[in-house]
Amino acid sequence: MIEEKIKDVIRDVIDFPKEGIVFKDITPIMLDPALSKEIVAYLASIYKDQKLDKIAGIESRGFLFGYPLAMELGLPFVLIRKTGKLPYHKISHSYDLEYGSATIEMHVDAVQKGERVLIHDDLLATGGSASAAAELIQKCGGEVAGFNFLVGLNFLNGIEKLKNYSNNITNLVAY
Amino acid sequence: MIEEKIKDVIRDVIDFPKEGIVFKDITPIMLDPALSKEIVAYLASIYKDQKLDKIAGIESRGFLFGYPLAMELGLPFVLIRKTGKLPYHKISHSYDLEYGSATIEMHVDAVQKGERVLIHDDLLATGGSASAAAELIQKCGGEVAGFNFLVGLNFLNGIEKLKNYSNNITNLVAY
Repeated sequence: MIEEKIKDVIRDVIDFPKEGIVFKDITPIMLDPALSKEIVAYLASIYKDQKLDKIAGIESRGFLFGYPLAMELGLPFVLIRKTGKLPYHKISHSYDLEYGSATIEMHVDAVQKGERVLIHDDLLATGGSASAAAELIQKCGGEVAGFNFLVGLNFLNGIEKLKNYSNNITNLVAY
Repeated sequence: MIEEKIKDVIRDVIDFPKEGIVFKDITPIMLDPALSKEIVAYLASIYKDQKLDKIAGIESRGFLFGYPLAMELGLPFVLIRKTGKLPYHKISHSYDLEYGSATIEMHVDAVQKGERVLIHDDLLATGGSASAAAELIQKCGGEVAGFNFLVGLNFLNGIEKLKNYSNNITNLVAY
């Protein structure tokens, strides 16, 4: 099963980025091309019959599977980036972090009114960046068609926050 | 020809990130799934007969084509990231910017002694980050098999700096 294969290679890093956190390191997946391709194919099998117009990936680990999945499905890929990175006219959304806040941005012409957009990131924690991404999609008049994550940290309840935008929430691996 | 197709969609953004710079915005490529797939296939056709062990992509736009290319070639993909992002044991290399300096990092076990690694990024400007990436590969005992960029700003002479590591330097589009 793909969930077991992914869990077998994900590496726990203790006390990163700070004491008490066990970080799920996904970089060993990238070192395994067969598993990488299997994940893209599996993701595509989930979404191929859903009505999607675009996939949006959240910088930077959301680019890793978001863009290959978009190519596999023949869909345009939208980059959601940290503030100051995108060059063209853009819209922003800020959200609270444990300490301070963060801002993400998207080009104004990346999503058109009425388009159904799947939001992808590598990991769902508290749902802060994913819900900020959903706000960006909606500000452009787009519709949040769902959320996809490689890994979900279910004990952090990020899903509850995302249900305000879509109930179509999937992760391949849950902790 | 693929070079013309890419140039047709790349968008010039004037005065980004600062006055006097014409920024080459590649995000319209990501919105075109057919062109995206064609680029991956074209890149793979360049490298399929070269002796490569791994592909390393430089955060974050180097992830966009680096990982799909690695999958297409059946090669492991190595993430080179800005400082503080990678969770496991890592090596660092700092390099000078116009004002100040930057540091990039790689996991210590991402490249093994003797492995031939192709370094990929979206854009070659002065070659600062690409040559820093080459230093990381060499620090791990790896060999720089070459450099690949989607876009080369040839007037900035980055190629001269990279020739210290490999003469196998390719970009799909040149300005």
